[in-house]
Amino acid sequence: MKFKNPPVNSLSLELLTELVISLEKLENDKSFRGLILTSDRPGIFSAGLDLREMCGRNPAHYAEYWRAVQELWLRLYLSNMVVISAINGASPAGGCLMALCSDYRVLADNPKYNIGLNETLLGIVAPFWFKDTLVNTIGHRTAERALQLGLLFPPADALQVGMVDQVVPEDQVQSKALSVMAQWLAIPEHARQLTKNMMRKATADLLIKQREADIQNFVSFISKDSIQKSLHIYLEKLKQKKG
Amino acid sequence: MKFKNPPVNSLSLELLTELVISLEKLENDKSFRGLILTSDRPGIFSAGLDLREMCGRNPAHYAEYWRAVQELWLRLYLSNMVVISAINGASPAGGCLMALCSDYRVLADNPKYNIGLNETLLGIVAPFWFKDTLVNTIGHRTAERALQLGLLFPPADALQVGMVDQVVPEDQVQSKALSVMAQWLAIPEHARQLTKNMMRKATADLLIKQREADIQNFVSFISKDSIQKSLHIYLEKLKQKKG
Amino acid sequence: MKFKNPPVNSLSLELLTELVISLEKLENDKSFRGLILTSDRPGIFSAGLDLREMCGRNPAHYAEYWRAVQELWLRLYLSNMVVISAINGASPAGGCLMALCSDYRVLADNPKYNIGLNETLLGIVAPFWFKDTLVNTIGHRTAERALQLGLLFPPADALQVGMVDQVVPEDQVQSKALSVMAQWLAIPEHARQLTKNMMRKATADLLIKQREADIQNFVSFISKDSIQKSLHIYLEKLKQKKG
Repeated sequence: MKFKNPPVNSLSLELLTELVISLEKLENDKSFRGLILTSDRPGIFSAGLDLREMCGRNPAHYAEYWRAVQELWLRLYLSNMVVISAINGASPAGGCLMALCSDYRVLADNPKYNIGLNETLLGIVAPFWFKDTLVNTIGHRTAERALQLGLLFPPADALQVGMVDQVVPEDQVQSKALSVMAQWLAIPEHARQLTKNMMRKATADLLIKQREADIQNFVSFISKDSIQKSLHIYLEKLKQKKG
Repeated sequence: MKFKNPPVNSLSLELLTELVISLEKLENDKSFRGLILTSDRPGIFSAGLDLREMCGRNPAHYAEYWRAVQELWLRLYLSNMVVISAINGASPAGGCLMALCSDYRVLADNPKYNIGLNETLLGIVAPFWFKDTLVNTIGHRTAERALQLGLLFPPADALQVGMVDQVVPEDQVQSKALSVMAQWLAIPEHARQLTKNMMRKATADLLIKQREADIQNFVSFISKDSIQKSLHIYLEKLKQKKG
Repeated sequence: MKFKNPPVNSLSLELLTELVISLEKLENDKSFRGLILTSDRPGIFSAGLDLREMCGRNPAHYAEYWRAVQELWLRLYLSNMVVISAINGASPAGGCLMALCSDYRVLADNPKYNIGLNETLLGIVAPFWFKDTLVNTIGHRTAERALQLGLLFPPADALQVGMVDQVVPEDQVQSKALSVMAQWLAIPEHARQLTKNMMRKATADLLIKQREADIQNFVSFISKDSIQKSLHIYLEKLKQKKG
């Protein structure tokens, strides 16, 4: 599955909806047993959530958008397929989250390909289920520091803290992801799926049991004048950069 | 306490019952303050649960067997004694579990002495309390990967992920276990016991609160035709190997 | 904030009360955004709880003292400020706890500057919230071993297990703490505070929901003849050492 939403594979509402529908199809088609997440545009895996969906819109839009983000996370994190990320570009925030949902992460060894949940740098806060996913991957203490400081880890550091499982030369990311996939697909499938579910169900349930409250939290937080203002400033900066 | 059940120290119902009774006696005898788990047969620590107890029997037998497995885990994991494993052989599945219940694990440096919860490779699933014991020992992410892939770690890897605490030359396993025991026994006993209990009680309670449901789960899972078939094939392979 | 309570910065009831009042003031004064914990007496960061407050007093005194310890932990652990420890001396038990409450720990590279929760060595038991703070910092397995054995880690080991974040030459502890503080203060403040709270609230709530029961536990434990006796012996030893 190749992310393709120029210029930076932002998770717009449209892309999210597409991804969720594709995932549902793949999940129900027993001939698909594994999924490799990668980018159609080497250089950027995914820039994460689309700030334009969170800025200058109405509460109903924010709610719809957030429900789609939740849905993508739930489907990726609990997928019965083997999910492997072939990370061929930078993956901040939501891009990092998708990688964290995988069963295995291969990162291209390029100093520009940072990965991390950098929400605080934008003045916003990762939701508790982003946090839980990170804690499950790199442990409580490393997650606490990384989330507070909004750290983006270059490849060597990402490997060292356990944010990714392997760092390989850029031209070997896809082939390495494929060979890892072969290893995972060799495991008796039903037992592997039950085991994965046992590891992740409790974390997913925390959101499932309070999806509506989580949406309300997001809508009221993102609607604040101060947050809208800081997102607006950030978006303007991005535009100037491109210009 | 030396495991002795030729040829591979499988945890048959008989051995489990024996171990539980011995543990109970030792626990109640205040002159025993420490316990070293090791094998009478260097080369195999314990092959773990006895597949013959889970194959071709009736539900009542499966239930009795599973209750005995639970009982051993509860007694080992919550033992007031200092429990140290002198791992002088391979320890897959249930063998690994007993080692994980210890307070300290010394592994002989022999490339054949793998350790891990490899249940998925047999098409079965480690119960949640095996999983919890592993997560408590090596953390969530490493456990997730190890359990899904059914990884068996050779000594250097076992040390690196924290599956064991020390790897020593094969002829020093017993002496090292004894010297570690001396260090642990030097701690004021009541304080150490209360501290151990504080660390482990919550994990044990998860099973204690649902032992019957866990037994039912096991019986219905293991009774499935597909599972019986795959266990049967596996047992046949083992017989041919020996033959 | 410099600890100053000769000779070893023990957390007497008086010092605890002072610290809590100071923290409350700083917390409410928006011009204070960061706090560095360090000792006025290089060589000893803090010896931790004051055994004299726990020995030979009446239950009401024990209860008052314990409530003050709880209060300090709650305020430090949940502080909205960036809290950094510049650990310029040994920090056993309660001294270690204060360091663990920080967002970042810089330890002076002096082999005498051990850090750890060594309660078992005195025959007492760290309360569950000390344990939770430690588990959040160094993980379950390392905490289990450290707490049972009452381990005090010299600098290199403390860094290796994650008890501290950095070890620097003794004359650079303060300057390093200041430069780390500058890095943390550069993060958008509201987002950082909400993120910190998200990471720590669940752990703090475990105590908040049962403060009175925890006080009763402490009072009845510490009032036991056997505990009083062992504390008394320990205090006598300390006096003889000084003499």
